[in-house]
Amino acid sequence: MYELFFQQFNEKVPLTAEEQETIKTFLTPKKLRKKQYLLQEGDICKYIAFVEKGALKSYVIDEAGTERITQFALEGWTISDLYSFLTGEPATYLIDAIEDAELVLISKAAHEELLQQVPKYETYIRLQITGAYIALQRRLTSIISLPIEERYKNLTTLYPTIVQRVPQHMIASYMGLTPETLSRVRGRVTGRK
Amino acid sequence: MYELFFQQFNEKVPLTAEEQETIKTFLTPKKLRKKQYLLQEGDICKYIAFVEKGALKSYVIDEAGTERITQFALEGWTISDLYSFLTGEPATYLIDAIEDAELVLISKAAHEELLQQVPKYETYIRLQITGAYIALQRRLTSIISLPIEERYKNLTTLYPTIVQRVPQHMIASYMGLTPETLSRVRGRVTGRK
Repeated sequence: MYELFFQQFNEKVPLTAEEQETIKTFLTPKKLRKKQYLLQEGDICKYIAFVEKGALKSYVIDEAGTERITQFALEGWTISDLYSFLTGEPATYLIDAIEDAELVLISKAAHEELLQQVPKYETYIRLQITGAYIALQRRLTSIISLPIEERYKNLTTLYPTIVQRVPQHMIASYMGLTPETLSRVRGRVTGRK
Repeated sequence: MYELFFQQFNEKVPLTAEEQETIKTFLTPKKLRKKQYLLQEGDICKYIAFVEKGALKSYVIDEAGTERITQFALEGWTISDLYSFLTGEPATYLIDAIEDAELVLISKAAHEELLQQVPKYETYIRLQITGAYIALQRRLTSIISLPIEERYKNLTTLYPTIVQRVPQHMIASYMGLTPETLSRVRGRVTGRK
């Protein structure tokens, strides 16, 4: 249990066996079936979720009722509504499973305790958030400065697994396109190669 | 010197006088004149810059040669090309001063040393990056899910000082609009009030 979680943790910050055991006592495993929610809009986000297996997405619903995907999380990724988690304010994002999933949950209480008790946990969290910040900054820059074809190429280069595993209509939502436009973009990108 | 920097630091993580003195030895002050660069594209980002006074912007230049602003940093904000800073890879972003500015610089070597020597520095950095991540996530969500008028209203609500101090053509660039479109948006938003 928690295999991938600790593999990645140790790659970032090597743990002693004892530290690993301490951290384990603060973790909660959770299974989600495809389409099941981890977080619904307006609820308070109680967990940081690490994906051991499967895939999740976070999204908002716009005024027209359309789902706008803000993030995918496959194996090894972390997903949460961080603002809601940290402040206790209602969540802005919804999170659900794209595939059957196995998660490692860290509750708010566990997070606070771990920050106090295990200094390496703070380092781990700092590095995780830094990675998430850099990924988000790239995505934003790509959206505001690149033509759609380049954005699609970037996505396939940086995250080939997402493009392969996630249904096309979700990729379209993530890119802010209709499925038809995405299909044309894919055609043009493939044709150019 | 470093007044605002330490004021904010202490609000996030209270420091003893001794810790504050230690941290001070790792900081470098820098003045920038309006339009002067802190970072040019392709250079390696050597500093995290905290703004004591004045205003900066980071941006990319798109294929058409247009400046696309990714971030503003006024007093109390931090600005950097974090990926370049952490990896030593060439910078993606350019950073320059919108107004004459006074900065507190933390070099890569100082950053590494501070992480080792002052545990509260790690907490400070974790909280700073978390704040930056949440701000970026909001901005992205706003771009992909809200009509332009709502995006402009959000900007004026969340960052009134930016809207007041930064020239309109830069606000337009930040929002991905032409100055003419921004002017129409402002008219509609003001008219509705």
